[in-house]
Amino acid sequence: MNWTDEITAAAARIKGHVLRTPVATVNSFGLGYPIQIKLEHMQHTGTFKARGAFNTLLSKSVPPAGLVAASGGNHGAAVAFAAKKLGHNARIYVPEMAGPSKIGLIRDAGADLQVVPGAYANALEQALAWEAETGAMQIHAYDAPETVIGQGTCAMEWDQQGLDADTVLVAVGGGGLIGGTMAWLDGQRRVIAVEPETSCALNAALNAGKPVDVDVSGVAANALGARRIGDICFDLAMSTGTDSLLVTDEAILIAQRLLWKELRQLVEPAGATALAALISGAYVPAANEKIAVLICGANVSPDPFP
Amino acid sequence: MNWTDEITAAAARIKGHVLRTPVATVNSFGLGYPIQIKLEHMQHTGTFKARGAFNTLLSKSVPPAGLVAASGGNHGAAVAFAAKKLGHNARIYVPEMAGPSKIGLIRDAGADLQVVPGAYANALEQALAWEAETGAMQIHAYDAPETVIGQGTCAMEWDQQGLDADTVLVAVGGGGLIGGTMAWLDGQRRVIAVEPETSCALNAALNAGKPVDVDVSGVAANALGARRIGDICFDLAMSTGTDSLLVTDEAILIAQRLLWKELRQLVEPAGATALAALISGAYVPAANEKIAVLICGANVSPDPFP
Repeated sequence: MNWTDEITAAAARIKGHVLRTPVATVNSFGLGYPIQIKLEHMQHTGTFKARGAFNTLLSKSVPPAGLVAASGGNHGAAVAFAAKKLGHNARIYVPEMAGPSKIGLIRDAGADLQVVPGAYANALEQALAWEAETGAMQIHAYDAPETVIGQGTCAMEWDQQGLDADTVLVAVGGGGLIGGTMAWLDGQRRVIAVEPETSCALNAALNAGKPVDVDVSGVAANALGARRIGDICFDLAMSTGTDSLLVTDEAILIAQRLLWKELRQLVEPAGATALAALISGAYVPAANEKIAVLICGANVSPDPFP
Repeated sequence: MNWTDEITAAAARIKGHVLRTPVATVNSFGLGYPIQIKLEHMQHTGTFKARGAFNTLLSKSVPPAGLVAASGGNHGAAVAFAAKKLGHNARIYVPEMAGPSKIGLIRDAGADLQVVPGAYANALEQALAWEAETGAMQIHAYDAPETVIGQGTCAMEWDQQGLDADTVLVAVGGGGLIGGTMAWLDGQRRVIAVEPETSCALNAALNAGKPVDVDVSGVAANALGARRIGDICFDLAMSTGTDSLLVTDEAILIAQRLLWKELRQLVEPAGATALAALISGAYVPAANEKIAVLICGANVSPDPFP
């Protein structure tokens, strides 16, 4: 795969459908050094995931039955939004336990919303049944080439905006966003993969030498809580030599609080996870090392405007 | 006054003390046309007011007794923050009725906080008494040259960032921010002054031909509720031919909600007031007219992280 060409083509494909999110250099959080941040949580539906959703829908032939997804949150909202914008039907199965905030997010995005009693597994079961029955297309949240390529447009865009960093810190769930980031920045910048100790599928995979199942919990689990890292991400992490590190839930909550207190950016815990690595000292830059941090999601609970 | 020279000097003076706030072009809110926005609510203490506070403290000789201000919110927080950063004492008198969110904001900024029973007038009385007793310096929230010049650095910065607009919409309270904006952009861009119907000191002054007292109330009153427009702002509005228009409280609340729903920016009503003019149709751009909107404050109540 020529990632650079694929991501470049994707950026042209989704132009006009996604927001070019702003970048700022800040000297905040008591770090004592400036960092560059990209406010990707301003993206449509509040996360980077709109990039992969649009790239998929504009790359593949969507069947008459439209789209289907099971999701407790960000992925479902992005698929629903992109489908509506492009005139496709999207049925999104949401577990009841996702709670009113995430359910409201998907409803707002305009999907055919199906709230399923129970947990994610129940929603997934119904989504698979709907796919089998109707031929609707599933969009994978992170482990499909179109998804990873779409998320890679975020790093490409940042490059165009003057990414001023030796090292870029990115939060990891299933590996779509960091996969695209590694693919674009390969060889040009150091990429640091940051995961919560409580949801660390990439770290576990790197330790095991292959993707393995992990338990997920903690404050960022509803966004970063993939049980197994995607194969595409794992392969990219191995080939690019990406470093993996972990942060505590407490560090994530402190970073989340400081993003509000110092920059008035209200983000979800997943969106503050990469920054937590700096604030907690889990990552300490070398002298003169220039650092960039991707802020990737803002679908907080409770929603301030339900 | 050579405003261009003064603002240019101020920008150099306060560099490093204020945040260069990011700019984005968005096609949102159902407007049907793109607008450029500047996220000045990310500024230290959540509003543009840090610019004027730093410019004042770095322009004038601060007496040994330090600073004093009466404020129910944004101005007090900015003065407290700038004073602490520069090593001055700042005593801020806050009316009890300002409520826990605004009081917390000023406390967080590191002031010698004095909570006064009653309303703003009671706090102001005690602040004036403290000034008389100790020789502490009052910083005017909007009607002093150093304040207006400091706020003008926001427009200058935007120009440097590629302000792409024929017309710039700015919310108005006492006139510090729009005063600095008019001073910098004079003759180069059209400036539209947007006020709530419920707090419209500039509009009333333009109608009367001179600054007059107005009643203030409504959703943005704790930030925009000046009883009388500043003389500096009034003179600039007359000399530059700035247009004034009003928006309803309802329109402000809709704009506030949409800033969260579509861009995940949680702002206070004052911060959404300029945008409300577009969303409500109070201002309708001509064909091909390029529009910019300044988002100026994010000190919402309740504070999501009290």
